[in-house]
Amino acid sequence: MMEIIFLGCGGGMPTPERSLASMMINYEGRKILIDCGEGTQVSMKMVGRGFKTIDIICITHIHGDHIIGLPGLLSTIGNSGKVDPLIIIGPKGIAEAVKSLMYIVPYLPYELRVIENYSGSIDFGDKYSIKELGVLFKPMNIQISSIELEHSSPCFGYSFYIKRNPKFNIEKAIENNVPKNIWNKLQIGEEIIIDNKLYTKEMVLGTEREGLKISYITDTRPILDINNFVYNSDLFVCEGTYGKEEDIDKAIRNKHMTFKEAASIAANSNVKKLILTHFSPALKNPEDYIDNAKAVFNESYLAKDRLIETLKFN
Amino acid sequence: MMEIIFLGCGGGMPTPERSLASMMINYEGRKILIDCGEGTQVSMKMVGRGFKTIDIICITHIHGDHIIGLPGLLSTIGNSGKVDPLIIIGPKGIAEAVKSLMYIVPYLPYELRVIENYSGSIDFGDKYSIKELGVLFKPMNIQISSIELEHSSPCFGYSFYIKRNPKFNIEKAIENNVPKNIWNKLQIGEEIIIDNKLYTKEMVLGTEREGLKISYITDTRPILDINNFVYNSDLFVCEGTYGKEEDIDKAIRNKHMTFKEAASIAANSNVKKLILTHFSPALKNPEDYIDNAKAVFNESYLAKDRLIETLKFN
Repeated sequence: MMEIIFLGCGGGMPTPERSLASMMINYEGRKILIDCGEGTQVSMKMVGRGFKTIDIICITHIHGDHIIGLPGLLSTIGNSGKVDPLIIIGPKGIAEAVKSLMYIVPYLPYELRVIENYSGSIDFGDKYSIKELGVLFKPMNIQISSIELEHSSPCFGYSFYIKRNPKFNIEKAIENNVPKNIWNKLQIGEEIIIDNKLYTKEMVLGTEREGLKISYITDTRPILDINNFVYNSDLFVCEGTYGKEEDIDKAIRNKHMTFKEAASIAANSNVKKLILTHFSPALKNPEDYIDNAKAVFNESYLAKDRLIETLKFN
Repeated sequence: MMEIIFLGCGGGMPTPERSLASMMINYEGRKILIDCGEGTQVSMKMVGRGFKTIDIICITHIHGDHIIGLPGLLSTIGNSGKVDPLIIIGPKGIAEAVKSLMYIVPYLPYELRVIENYSGSIDFGDKYSIKELGVLFKPMNIQISSIELEHSSPCFGYSFYIKRNPKFNIEKAIENNVPKNIWNKLQIGEEIIIDNKLYTKEMVLGTEREGLKISYITDTRPILDINNFVYNSDLFVCEGTYGKEEDIDKAIRNKHMTFKEAASIAANSNVKKLILTHFSPALKNPEDYIDNAKAVFNESYLAKDRLIETLKFN
């Protein structure tokens, strides 16, 4: 089971009701954060999931409402006892932005590794792929992909594919003459050599099973590439800065989307569920406009701070 | 009348109950902020006093819990319509810290002027003194002094002396042969030349009246210099990171104070009232320990987020 926790669902500036953009994926005791606006660490405290196991932070773009919470959060993670490396992924400019913000937090007890403007997918379950990153990172069963969006500064959308472990296949293990005492180790991914013979997980595991796909798109206009990128998502999290369709001019000018535009992407991408987030501070009651989304895509819902969504493998 | 608003009274890291260090002085429609931890702008919104008239921000030191809120706040002030300059005062290193944090907010619609490591007092009511700062700053009846404290990084304490305007003295105005049609203008501080004769406010105003003194001391050990610096304060705001006197070792090690230590300064400095702030995140209920302060100085009280204290001239 996996938790998606909306830590902040506001855009622009924080309000008493809404912290700024941040969402957390909590899976198998490890955490991925997407964006880190002001208020993120307080929301983290309120949901009580702990800071130590945040291993990856994906930043969509270098606007204050998506990144200002970072120095405080990284500092608090440091006080939580973390010693494993933490990876920050972001668009062009992210390394310099992190360096600048961290001026006031000169020391962290863990390694910080920034991956800037990386196009394509990173498989964090593949230890060879992780080795290339140059950090001692404990593999996690997740593949992160990015897409360039259309905003007023370089901006990434992200998708997260959480792989489901294949079942242990006892017939296959016997057929491959795998010694019984290493079955467990192979199942969890270790590779073992006995008498010059290499044993791998493929010798004991069954066929691949369908995983879960979560996609996160903010801040952007609704460009066509998004449809392919979020295709088949179990959960599609998308910005809905403006509720009213009458605000379409503002959406175009400020490079954002209306509820209806976000729902149109959902309708065209075979996603199971849409959750809207990143509401304008002027949008006091997003629920007043949810029908603008539901009319286009019925499985449309609204985020709110500290909403917890759980996902299960099919 | 003047308002002192505690925007955040936590130290170290923010909690759901306490934002990080920040206090506001609101007087004659203009505002001075002291420190700007994470959560400051949300607290500002909650008390509803407006962002546009923040004219001075004093930063005690460059630790995250006292300054991380700055880029978000300055950006929000920019969206409030401010065009007048904003002055930031702070210890050694403040200019570089502000520059680094503002990397993610590259444009502000108002001038930002940083005064670094300025020892002594600045009289913001004296237009000649302000001119030296090199900004077009509308005078305000306040004098700001700083003191070097003893913390793990360069740290300033501040005191604010709010001058009370002398009364208009009609006998003096007549005695000095001041034309009646310029009485009002002289009273508000204008200088006027008529027939080669200079008329000034001193020609129409009575003797000086006692003002109000507010002092703000955090983060530091209780060094002797503080007693002189805060002497005679109408309100002495002081850190009380630890409530229990048993935590004195931690206080010494981390360069902070216990409630009792702060109260001892108050008792030795002829201040009228002490408000403790900057509580450790581990200090869940500061009220459990207020008696440790009251036993030493009876007029000891506790800050909490969004507490509003009003002060009146005697």
